Amino acid sequence: MSFIVRKGEKEDMKNVMRLIKELAAFEKLPNEVEISEADLIKDGFSEHPKFMTFVAEENHEIIGATLFYERYSTWKGRVIHLEDLIVTEQKRGFGVGMALYTAILKYAYDMGAKRVVWDVLDWNQNAIDFYKSTGANVLEDWQVVHMREDALKKFIETK
Amino acid sequence: MSFIVRKGEKEDMKNVMRLIKELAAFEKLPNEVEISEADLIKDGFSEHPKFMTFVAEENHEIIGATLFYERYSTWKGRVIHLEDLIVTEQKRGFGVGMALYTAILKYAYDMGAKRVVWDVLDWNQNAIDFYKSTGANVLEDWQVVHMREDALKKFIETK
Repeated sequence: MSFIVRKGEKEDMKNVMRLIKELAAFEKLPNEVEISEADLIKDGFSEHPKFMTFVAEENHEIIGATLFYERYSTWKGRVIHLEDLIVTEQKRGFGVGMALYTAILKYAYDMGAKRVVWDVLDWNQNAIDFYKSTGANVLEDWQVVHMREDALKKFIETK
Repeated sequence: MSFIVRKGEKEDMKNVMRLIKELAAFEKLPNEVEISEADLIKDGFSEHPKFMTFVAEENHEIIGATLFYERYSTWKGRVIHLEDLIVTEQKRGFGVGMALYTAILKYAYDMGAKRVVWDVLDWNQNAIDFYKSTGANVLEDWQVVHMREDALKKFIETK
């Protein structure tokens, strides 16, 4: 199996969208995906892009992608957030995920990021074991908090 | 007690730095703070600012601050991340935290953010109860993963 990893371009967003939907289905939350290919193009390729992507390509077919962006830690400074890393199901087990993971970590290292961060589902033991094997830590004492759009609207309207 | 909430400026970063250190001490991790006032000025007030702040001011004294920035969800789109919200210890209990929290949620609402997200320490029950009372959800099945600078370096060097 032979593939390359390269920066994602506008033309790849259709396939990135397909992979995002595939991951959401794997995560048992397929109906949570509200964005479209047009959103990815608008938000990722404007004057101030909101994210960057790498894609894995085999025979001109996109078989994996990773989406990431910069964050800021008040303790460490500039940080990279890995939002999604997806390999299409029938292409898993051939090193595509590791190649994408390495690409993002290399990008973070080269820009001088002080940390790379992401979230993982606590039942996704394969992913957790993989991350730990590469030197990452799963934080035991932090939890993620979300205020969803409907709750935000309700909060603001009562102010 | 009378205070105002306003956007943080370069001149406020000295006091924001003081509050960041105060929060890190409360979180029992005072030695984790590696950034300086100069970093905050460089990273927050360049051509492409990495974050924004609101500060709470009483009699020309900064008594609280919140630092936030934009993220991107592959499910929802543009999202605001609340990185820190700090009220200096002797000024707690007077609504300063709620005023800063409201300012950031108002900012998110006005820009059309699809979600506001942050992390909380699982032993900080007061904070968790407060967030829940405002309509936020603590996600039970997601965990935060960090690859620190030293692990990142080690990973890259073995590639």
